[in-house]
Amino acid sequence: MNFESEYRIRPNQQVSLDTIETRTRGPFERKSDGKAVTEENVKVIRDLQYRMFVEREQSLLIVLQAPDAAGKDGLIRKVLGKMNPQGCRTYPFKVPNETELAHDFLWRIHHCTPSKGKVAIFNRSHYEDVLVVRVENLVPKSVWSKRFELINDFERILTANGTRVLKFYLHISPEEQLERFKERLDNPDKHWKLNAGDYESRRHWDAFHRAYEEVFQKCSTEDAPWYVVPADRKWYRNAVVSSIVAKTLRDMAPQLPPVDVDLDEIRQLYHQAHARQQESS
Amino acid sequence: MNFESEYRIRPNQQVSLDTIETRTRGPFERKSDGKAVTEENVKVIRDLQYRMFVEREQSLLIVLQAPDAAGKDGLIRKVLGKMNPQGCRTYPFKVPNETELAHDFLWRIHHCTPSKGKVAIFNRSHYEDVLVVRVENLVPKSVWSKRFELINDFERILTANGTRVLKFYLHISPEEQLERFKERLDNPDKHWKLNAGDYESRRHWDAFHRAYEEVFQKCSTEDAPWYVVPADRKWYRNAVVSSIVAKTLRDMAPQLPPVDVDLDEIRQLYHQAHARQQESS
Repeated sequence: MNFESEYRIRPNQQVSLDTIETRTRGPFERKSDGKAVTEENVKVIRDLQYRMFVEREQSLLIVLQAPDAAGKDGLIRKVLGKMNPQGCRTYPFKVPNETELAHDFLWRIHHCTPSKGKVAIFNRSHYEDVLVVRVENLVPKSVWSKRFELINDFERILTANGTRVLKFYLHISPEEQLERFKERLDNPDKHWKLNAGDYESRRHWDAFHRAYEEVFQKCSTEDAPWYVVPADRKWYRNAVVSSIVAKTLRDMAPQLPPVDVDLDEIRQLYHQAHARQQESS
Repeated sequence: MNFESEYRIRPNQQVSLDTIETRTRGPFERKSDGKAVTEENVKVIRDLQYRMFVEREQSLLIVLQAPDAAGKDGLIRKVLGKMNPQGCRTYPFKVPNETELAHDFLWRIHHCTPSKGKVAIFNRSHYEDVLVVRVENLVPKSVWSKRFELINDFERILTANGTRVLKFYLHISPEEQLERFKERLDNPDKHWKLNAGDYESRRHWDAFHRAYEEVFQKCSTEDAPWYVVPADRKWYRNAVVSSIVAKTLRDMAPQLPPVDVDLDEIRQLYHQAHARQQESS
């Protein structure tokens, strides 16, 4: 199964989230089959990340958006966070502070985009400015409605400089979310995550779906596509996202750069050093 | 064996690097014993890092210094980088740029120190300003010789705010370094790392040792100690560093914060949501 093609939203595609399944196991008969695919993908991703890091020509930006408890943190812990931390950073975007609010909404985001050779993972992103901001009426429609085009402009600036942009929406059902809230209640180590506001957000479930659908239609571009990933099953979510990241890195085909040193000279230096070592010991 | 006590440099302690062994296997008969210790430590570190992240009261700064090829990258890849990337960042410090040079030498460093709940790993650090800068005469002695005290002042500012500072020197022999240079020559995937300058640096081996010894004597404090870690054997280096990090985190004893929400209220919200779910399905 080609997950990349299966779950990519085409430019201008009308999406109806309510009709996209959340609980599928795709082509996998057993959970262990999905886990094996993820494990293999992680190895590929690590190898290609290393090549990209050394090459220093391209970069990768991974945007994660999802309802609460849909698994952004788990995905980072189990899959994306397996990359070498020297070339990969995660950035959480919370409520903007006073300085950030005094700038345009993309200012703080731009600061965190990956430099050449690097990977950045956004835990929430500039898309909140057309999602929660819209649903909770934090700015007037006249403001947020212009942002879809501004986001496309911004992402074009990134892709023009060699950054691949992948945007994942982790798609869970309200039933699965409630189940996960229950797990938090049952586990004292997770009580710090509890928040009455989570239940309040559930009342806006449909409004968020409508807001996401407009995002997908307007901001899934050829160069910076959105993927809607069935996420009720964590192992399936991991298999799908890791497959898409691995495929993308393969397409980017980072190459170890040609050696710009004189190998013979280095070999000679090595032999000299080796000879000195022998003498002194 | 208490690695933390064994390898910690005491304040004002005179260190002679040439008399400290690099190739020991410590208490381990077999390499697999050392690897098992590291694996166990990584689990402990991940768990305590999670608690520190949630607690948001303390932070941890890990400074890595070493000769070329001594294994900073490997240590990050195999041990320190196993922490959850959402709470841990690595910072490489290279030659300072023009803006950085226009400030005091600690300005760019301060920018990268960890906020509460977080871990920062420095791949090289402010110590280069009394090491390479000294050995290569980049600034006059009148300038670098004042920096030991300034570094202590700076680190005191960090520890006063709840940051634990651990500083590791990976101690390898010149023979082992040469062996690793050879491996780079033999592996085309590592040719990008080759650099005639590496052999030039070997000529300053003793000068670097003297510079490090002054660092250890003057800048290993109660609150921000230096550790000299035998590093010819990678698995031993990993076992020692992971043991010291794990012990430090245990001492810091981060606690999940008391729950500041009304659990009964959340339970009630859950049951209401559950009832609505049942109705609608």
